[in-house]
Amino acid sequence: MDVRVAYQGEPGAYSEQAALEFLGPNIESVPCRAFEDVFSLVSERKCQYGLIPVENSLAGSIHRNYDLMLEHDLHIIGEYNLRVRHCLLALPGVQIKDIQRVHSHPQALAQCDKNLKQLGVEFVAEADTAGSARLILTRDERHAGALASRRAADVYNLVILSENMEDNPANYTRFLALACDPGPIEGSEQSDYKTSIVFSLRNEPGALFKALSVFALRDIDLTKIESRPIQGQLWEYMFYIDFAGMAEDQNCSRALDHLAELSPYLRVLGSYQRHSQ
Amino acid sequence: MDVRVAYQGEPGAYSEQAALEFLGPNIESVPCRAFEDVFSLVSERKCQYGLIPVENSLAGSIHRNYDLMLEHDLHIIGEYNLRVRHCLLALPGVQIKDIQRVHSHPQALAQCDKNLKQLGVEFVAEADTAGSARLILTRDERHAGALASRRAADVYNLVILSENMEDNPANYTRFLALACDPGPIEGSEQSDYKTSIVFSLRNEPGALFKALSVFALRDIDLTKIESRPIQGQLWEYMFYIDFAGMAEDQNCSRALDHLAELSPYLRVLGSYQRHSQ
Repeated sequence: MDVRVAYQGEPGAYSEQAALEFLGPNIESVPCRAFEDVFSLVSERKCQYGLIPVENSLAGSIHRNYDLMLEHDLHIIGEYNLRVRHCLLALPGVQIKDIQRVHSHPQALAQCDKNLKQLGVEFVAEADTAGSARLILTRDERHAGALASRRAADVYNLVILSENMEDNPANYTRFLALACDPGPIEGSEQSDYKTSIVFSLRNEPGALFKALSVFALRDIDLTKIESRPIQGQLWEYMFYIDFAGMAEDQNCSRALDHLAELSPYLRVLGSYQRHSQ
Repeated sequence: MDVRVAYQGEPGAYSEQAALEFLGPNIESVPCRAFEDVFSLVSERKCQYGLIPVENSLAGSIHRNYDLMLEHDLHIIGEYNLRVRHCLLALPGVQIKDIQRVHSHPQALAQCDKNLKQLGVEFVAEADTAGSARLILTRDERHAGALASRRAADVYNLVILSENMEDNPANYTRFLALACDPGPIEGSEQSDYKTSIVFSLRNEPGALFKALSVFALRDIDLTKIESRPIQGQLWEYMFYIDFAGMAEDQNCSRALDHLAELSPYLRVLGSYQRHSQ
């Protein structure tokens, strides 16, 4: 049986494209309405994996998914950095000069602002990128285009009029693969690893400095830090840190023991192969 | 002439209520369509102050405003923590038992989920809270209510059927007051101060630890840390820190000199009186 991978969005969403690029073309990709549904399908073992976006290099973190990782007992088993290429899609036979309107999610439209203005087209905001592609097909719109993923072209039988509509090419979205059981995904080779953790701190001076010292004193490199409010505890935070190494490495394991002395709450979300991009 | 204060939203928005509570009932509150417009009106000295939300205790930071602070040369001159009380508003004469539908922003509806379900009403998502209140008035809706601020009741001549519809009372939004010139706002007394800064770091192991050491070694308490991606520099970040004290205090001033040795970019956004809430 094919590996089932849950993602948020409609068929053709960037999350689906990331799932296919990361886990191979033979997976069965399972669309979900909300991020919560991705977590539920994996928790209930109806899908082996879930793929969730956690950060875009231009827009920043997708904080909802950090909160959901805390609420669910899943493990991060992989990461994938998708180069976001907003493609201009249209019905077969339509040429770029025929396009009067471009439909997409407001963030995609904003990221292609300069290139779209050069085309002199009207911007139409829609709920998501893949839905915009579907709309071109279902309404048989011969004077409109959609900004969406390359995958959306396949799903909705559209043609790609232009493949890199985004103004800034440093446009990547980082996805995390989640599973019920820990450990790197099958087939990955032992190489360069990362670990993600979440922890709380006592509300006292120097608390974060001391927490970071457990890594700095052992020359462990931090790749990301994020804070999120703790519900009901006014102006207190959960910290999410990614560091280089596996939780089981002696060095990292000692750092985590040390951090546990300082943190009322500490959880390892997972160790996984670093995606080099 | 009255002090003019720019805020984002329609008349009756929570930002307007915060402006009136913080800066007094005699200000002239100036509604703006977008956060950018608040920054522009203050930069062009068309308004003395701008009031922007930067964090909600339940939902987290409003990252767009951190980015805008970096893009503009304004100074933070005050902070105000607004206790967010979602009021159920209706036309005069309407009773709570008449309400079949409740209009509001999706986040306000979510924050009142349990209380609204007890009333057995339908949820209707709108673009903002104050706009929902206006809609009740303009459509003369006698079977609908709106979740909005107490201020919105005054603006749209509605009555408050219930004042604390939010499920979680630890619901505060932190606002910052911005001005062209630095310094605490008139009338504030010397007492407990905070300073906000933004800085970048070299992408090398231990960089954040060293940056925090400049505060920890001087027993300066950090109250908040936030990171935001730097546009065009993949997976590199700007850090925003709030700490206790004024930038001019000898202790803080030395910490900032020390941080400047480590940071390619460092800017003091402002020192201001701490709001105790």
